[in-house]
Amino acid sequence: MSDIPYRSALIIGAGPGISGSLTRRLRAENIPVVIAARRIDKLSSLVDETGAIALPVDAAEAGQIDALFAETEARIGAPEIVIYNASGRLRGPIAELDAAEVERAVAISALGAFYTVQQAARRMVPAGKGAILLTGATAGVKGFALSAPFAMGKFALRGLAQSAARELAPKGIHVAHFVIDGSVRAAHHADASGTPDSTLDPDAIAQSYIDVLRQHRSAWTWEMELRPWVEKF
Amino acid sequence: MSDIPYRSALIIGAGPGISGSLTRRLRAENIPVVIAARRIDKLSSLVDETGAIALPVDAAEAGQIDALFAETEARIGAPEIVIYNASGRLRGPIAELDAAEVERAVAISALGAFYTVQQAARRMVPAGKGAILLTGATAGVKGFALSAPFAMGKFALRGLAQSAARELAPKGIHVAHFVIDGSVRAAHHADASGTPDSTLDPDAIAQSYIDVLRQHRSAWTWEMELRPWVEKF
Amino acid sequence: MSDIPYRSALIIGAGPGISGSLTRRLRAENIPVVIAARRIDKLSSLVDETGAIALPVDAAEAGQIDALFAETEARIGAPEIVIYNASGRLRGPIAELDAAEVERAVAISALGAFYTVQQAARRMVPAGKGAILLTGATAGVKGFALSAPFAMGKFALRGLAQSAARELAPKGIHVAHFVIDGSVRAAHHADASGTPDSTLDPDAIAQSYIDVLRQHRSAWTWEMELRPWVEKF
Amino acid sequence: MSDIPYRSALIIGAGPGISGSLTRRLRAENIPVVIAARRIDKLSSLVDETGAIALPVDAAEAGQIDALFAETEARIGAPEIVIYNASGRLRGPIAELDAAEVERAVAISALGAFYTVQQAARRMVPAGKGAILLTGATAGVKGFALSAPFAMGKFALRGLAQSAARELAPKGIHVAHFVIDGSVRAAHHADASGTPDSTLDPDAIAQSYIDVLRQHRSAWTWEMELRPWVEKF
Repeated sequence: MSDIPYRSALIIGAGPGISGSLTRRLRAENIPVVIAARRIDKLSSLVDETGAIALPVDAAEAGQIDALFAETEARIGAPEIVIYNASGRLRGPIAELDAAEVERAVAISALGAFYTVQQAARRMVPAGKGAILLTGATAGVKGFALSAPFAMGKFALRGLAQSAARELAPKGIHVAHFVIDGSVRAAHHADASGTPDSTLDPDAIAQSYIDVLRQHRSAWTWEMELRPWVEKF
Repeated sequence: MSDIPYRSALIIGAGPGISGSLTRRLRAENIPVVIAARRIDKLSSLVDETGAIALPVDAAEAGQIDALFAETEARIGAPEIVIYNASGRLRGPIAELDAAEVERAVAISALGAFYTVQQAARRMVPAGKGAILLTGATAGVKGFALSAPFAMGKFALRGLAQSAARELAPKGIHVAHFVIDGSVRAAHHADASGTPDSTLDPDAIAQSYIDVLRQHRSAWTWEMELRPWVEKF
Repeated sequence: MSDIPYRSALIIGAGPGISGSLTRRLRAENIPVVIAARRIDKLSSLVDETGAIALPVDAAEAGQIDALFAETEARIGAPEIVIYNASGRLRGPIAELDAAEVERAVAISALGAFYTVQQAARRMVPAGKGAILLTGATAGVKGFALSAPFAMGKFALRGLAQSAARELAPKGIHVAHFVIDGSVRAAHHADASGTPDSTLDPDAIAQSYIDVLRQHRSAWTWEMELRPWVEKF
Repeated sequence: MSDIPYRSALIIGAGPGISGSLTRRLRAENIPVVIAARRIDKLSSLVDETGAIALPVDAAEAGQIDALFAETEARIGAPEIVIYNASGRLRGPIAELDAAEVERAVAISALGAFYTVQQAARRMVPAGKGAILLTGATAGVKGFALSAPFAMGKFALRGLAQSAARELAPKGIHVAHFVIDGSVRAAHHADASGTPDSTLDPDAIAQSYIDVLRQHRSAWTWEMELRPWVEKF
């Protein structure tokens, strides 16, 4: 098993356990990690445990993403791994949704990912190296009823990921999109349902992200679906 | 051949010929039509020819879409056919794009469509009847290099369309998404290339939209691709 | 509305009403029709009603498809419209299926379609004109549990349709694949369930096939999904 | 990194390097391996190197697959890992293809995979454990011109894989389909083109198969695309 060929990481958006598991795995390989979220007070135990650096960011704001990359670069160098986990989930009948909340949801799921990919590309393209991992959902490949804003955001994220992969892979940058299909349970918690492993273990998700980071450039994955063995699809 | 089972139409976004061809076809069936675009001065000959009503709108602004529907309702009644043709096309390397322009492109392609679908749903759901047609592009199913913002917008539009179809079809509202694959030529113009019909004739596109409007609810199409016979795909 | 630009039709496989409705529609336009199925005794009332010619065929046998085209050509000229509706439906747990029955199911759904497309291509390519319509199912885009043979056959049919469209469209031959999503009811029968139009009316399906036959080559559809308004998808 | 949780492997079809790389990787973990192909004389150096057992099989024959599983079971126990790499590649204009060769190509790509999945399921379902990996190609998601038989076979394989995953995953059996997009180079050979790693290294492919075998059942992958960094898609 080869080592991870990158030396610094930035993780944006503290998802339900995924960001924590990724931080632990990357730190276990001695890779410096910046983890960014709107409220970093929630990250204090993770920071204490792993030595990661927590920085605040509202991913929906282009200027804040720019500043986050600058601060990250100052602290650990330009990130060679960039992971975007932020998500704007909003449900409801189309007729009843609030337009401003829809805009916000799409901005978090998709525009924030664009700002992130852009900042990453500006640093990785000159270096000819880097990995950008984008966390999607089933909503990115199937638009469910009563979930139009989430579908819009996650479809847009997938379109971004595919376009970015086509543009950036030939420049040496590995772009991958993950379709998380199912509920993610809290790290180190047993599965709440009667069926074991019917929710995704964030450590298991993180392992597949690490596997992708280790892929040889002659056989890169662009997209990977992950779902529990008993999940309907 | 059954008649079109709707009595009023609103077309948003003056695409390259598609909106004009649709206006002519619907007017030929004596259906009142409002056509809305940012600059309605460009629509004057169409208005003169067909008797359609032109109204100005910036589709990226929720409030303007709301006002457009209110004005349309006042002029021709609540639209039973709503067609969204607006598109935010923006190309360039990811690293070089302007964030504000990206936001604007996604807003025109996708958020404007959401505002439109929402206004339509508010009127059509109580009536249990209506048709919403959304004009997409190949960029909505394949994210091309150097075209991330267009991919984001058109993927998001497709996610919206699919989610809306799942939510609204069982309420009697026909939602359909068209994947236009190729260049659309100006109406009533010959094809510029050496190969005849290598660009899409907007009248031919309009015919397929009309066919979908006439579909019986026992066999509705949710998505239709249209491309010239010689187009690579 | 333009007329159908083809002068002869061959329909293979008597599906649940679709073939009958298509025969009636094409005959109503004075297009000579050969309809072929394993048991033509079931087609006698359709023949009496429409004047179509019924010929027997086992679509899974290449030689019989060849002979069918030869006989069709002798009777009504080389068919300019060829429609393949035969389907090998077989369900059951993978471990329990009979290998020979699986082979037969795939042969009917997919190999028979290949023989048909091949015979059609041999006649249409020199003429630079023709339409080949292939009737698929949701099983061709989603492989359901306990339905592996049907998934294999219908996925293969879709692969054939897509490959044939790419090869033959630039030669002037319109290839289209229809994804029928739901149960098709018997022609001229009311819907059996409590919800009206919750099964597909074969006349409605036939109408969309006719619409596709009438499409202008500058805006051809390669694939069309048809489903009842209340069908889950 | 967890160990591979399976104790025996059967690999069918000696692909361009993939089967060899997989055999080496699995043997390096002390997993007994049977490798089966039409001509096992070509496998002698691999057998000498790794201690794998080579058995002859024509994958297109159901009876031979049955016998292969029985013999494998006698030699190394019921295989807990089953990998199907056989492929029926056949190209040419639809009008010119030989029907018998088309049948054979589809049988190798898809029917042989069905026989294999069936034999595997019969042994794995009672055990509640196992992994079935199916090697697909881009032709399974995109039907290219002049390649109808390969499209049919690989589409069918994908339909089988998806149906089998839905049926067997909830029984504890991991089914995964790999979309190999690009040319696979011979193992331990440099890339022939001017661009390094523009063809897939079979060792890199094998690594991703091993990663999938190691996935925790709470986050299984059903499908993975692998392509060189510079491959167009």
